[in-house]
Amino acid sequence: MMMSGEVSNKQIIFKDYVTGFPKESDMFLTTSSISLKVPEGSNALVVKNLYLSCDSYMLRMMKPSPSYVPSYVPGSPLRGYGVARVLESGHPDFKRGDLVWGVTGWEEYSLIDTPDTQIRIEHADVPLSYYTGILGMPGMTAYAGFMEVCSPKKGEYVFVSAASGAVGQVVGQLAKLLGCYVVGSGGSKEKVELLKSKLGFEEAFNYKEEQDLDAALKRYFPEGIDIYFENVGGKMLDAVMLNMRQHGRIALCGMISHYNPVQPEGIHNLMALIAKGIRMQGFMVYDYFDKYPKYLDLILPHIRDGKVAYVEDIAEGLENAPAALVSLFSGLFSGSNLGKPLIAVGGD
Amino acid sequence: MMMSGEVSNKQIIFKDYVTGFPKESDMFLTTSSISLKVPEGSNALVVKNLYLSCDSYMLRMMKPSPSYVPSYVPGSPLRGYGVARVLESGHPDFKRGDLVWGVTGWEEYSLIDTPDTQIRIEHADVPLSYYTGILGMPGMTAYAGFMEVCSPKKGEYVFVSAASGAVGQVVGQLAKLLGCYVVGSGGSKEKVELLKSKLGFEEAFNYKEEQDLDAALKRYFPEGIDIYFENVGGKMLDAVMLNMRQHGRIALCGMISHYNPVQPEGIHNLMALIAKGIRMQGFMVYDYFDKYPKYLDLILPHIRDGKVAYVEDIAEGLENAPAALVSLFSGLFSGSNLGKPLIAVGGD
Repeated sequence: MMMSGEVSNKQIIFKDYVTGFPKESDMFLTTSSISLKVPEGSNALVVKNLYLSCDSYMLRMMKPSPSYVPSYVPGSPLRGYGVARVLESGHPDFKRGDLVWGVTGWEEYSLIDTPDTQIRIEHADVPLSYYTGILGMPGMTAYAGFMEVCSPKKGEYVFVSAASGAVGQVVGQLAKLLGCYVVGSGGSKEKVELLKSKLGFEEAFNYKEEQDLDAALKRYFPEGIDIYFENVGGKMLDAVMLNMRQHGRIALCGMISHYNPVQPEGIHNLMALIAKGIRMQGFMVYDYFDKYPKYLDLILPHIRDGKVAYVEDIAEGLENAPAALVSLFSGLFSGSNLGKPLIAVGGD
Repeated sequence: MMMSGEVSNKQIIFKDYVTGFPKESDMFLTTSSISLKVPEGSNALVVKNLYLSCDSYMLRMMKPSPSYVPSYVPGSPLRGYGVARVLESGHPDFKRGDLVWGVTGWEEYSLIDTPDTQIRIEHADVPLSYYTGILGMPGMTAYAGFMEVCSPKKGEYVFVSAASGAVGQVVGQLAKLLGCYVVGSGGSKEKVELLKSKLGFEEAFNYKEEQDLDAALKRYFPEGIDIYFENVGGKMLDAVMLNMRQHGRIALCGMISHYNPVQPEGIHNLMALIAKGIRMQGFMVYDYFDKYPKYLDLILPHIRDGKVAYVEDIAEGLENAPAALVSLFSGLFSGSNLGKPLIAVGGD
């Protein structure tokens, strides 16, 4: 029942915790209602969601196990990063009409009662959807992990796994801007092609076509690897360790291959970190958000002049959101997806 | 046959590469002869060896596989760190009578043709044998790994595995000097007792008596671990990862448990490094030797005033060297050895 002052609000509801990877039937579309007024005395925002991001960390929120992110609540909408327009604000830093990016609900309209999680978009001359990707959390993840954690130097040899993903695309292009030599891996011919043709990687390879990852890395890095931006874990990480150079650095970002299996594959080559004095560092993007303005200053001009590209895979309409999210996870392993997946909510 | 100007020279010869751990029969004592003259025009040193160090890295030199240290040459004396007296010098930095520590042969007298590997001992008011331990490579390893790699802060929670070993003893006491809370693990009741009674660790436990290392660590570190000085690898490292605090640091030193098995145990909990923004860093002491004077300035006064202790296990006589080395490796796992093992060459 819709009360006075309320509007109808399509939502994607999380049904229940998933085992393995999610199926479309683990979510459903419903139509609820929402007041477009900020509650009296609150500093909340009411926003109209424009874009919703599909990110691999969301898998962990679909499981009950303790994690670094709180789980979704069954029966409530999914949550994730998105781009939205402020309809009403109880917070002095935001006003009606502002564009923001941050954590929001998978629904048409959201009441955001933690407005400090939102960042106002100051530059709308670039595609707004980029604020779910290269200009949002994935871009900042690339910047933090590569620039801040790895301290790259011109001419260094850089390897990026899952390189055509939301984060990897940016890592590779940051490395190119710095004058590094960059090779990426991906899970399909199309991804490899994309890395070389559109994203400026010197070389790229399909890890599924390599019988021996160690041999593949030795082929692409006869001099060894200075910096590895780690997105996948498992056998790739083990092979990389054997090919690191003295004083190399490994930024641990995603480790997709560890996301799901009950007993993840073991890593066997840590010994190599000792002999070569290698630093391996896990990081969370949240620790680096104070660097966001610095990152924008660096990347925006290159986006505007076309030197830096970003490939997206945009699903149209909230009703297609479950399929987009499911396809992200199946695509991580099948290699079928191409570009950073997101949803244009539409209806605006 | 002894030539004129030569003296007899007892040596411990490395017979051939070993599989698994060495047995006494992998080495033998022989008597050779050596000239006590420095070859004409060379900058070499001739030294009388006083103390020889048994260190776990020597296992890798007993194997043909490529490693960060070159293998021993079958038929030649073993080599390792030692303390020696200079008998003759072709190098301007050393003169007859100087005491030095550095890499030498397992024999009574050595011709050292790379004198840059030797450090002159300036402080002989402390036991000379300490220059194979707390004042030598193991001490510098502790200093580099703990102070330089881990950047400890007062009040932090520090865990040291193989804590009564040549390196671990020093790490724990450096941590205490800094005002950290230190817990160590070891493989016998005697080691645990030593850590608590003589070496000033707040707590210590016998890892062999713990069914569940994760539970043991939670008991000793209810607040979690800020710094882990890693000496053993395997299950302990995996358990530690689950107990690290936000922005913790892990210095990868030895990983004894990875030294030998053909297929070392896998590490499964690297994922934890991401969520907590943890830095894990391998290091080689050789990269930090420029800090040696700084380390001496710190540690010598505390050794002199008895605030810092060092427990040694000294075998007397070169003929007992093979047994001492074999016992180091069996002791790493049986827990039977106590204190840093070394050999007093004697005959002086």
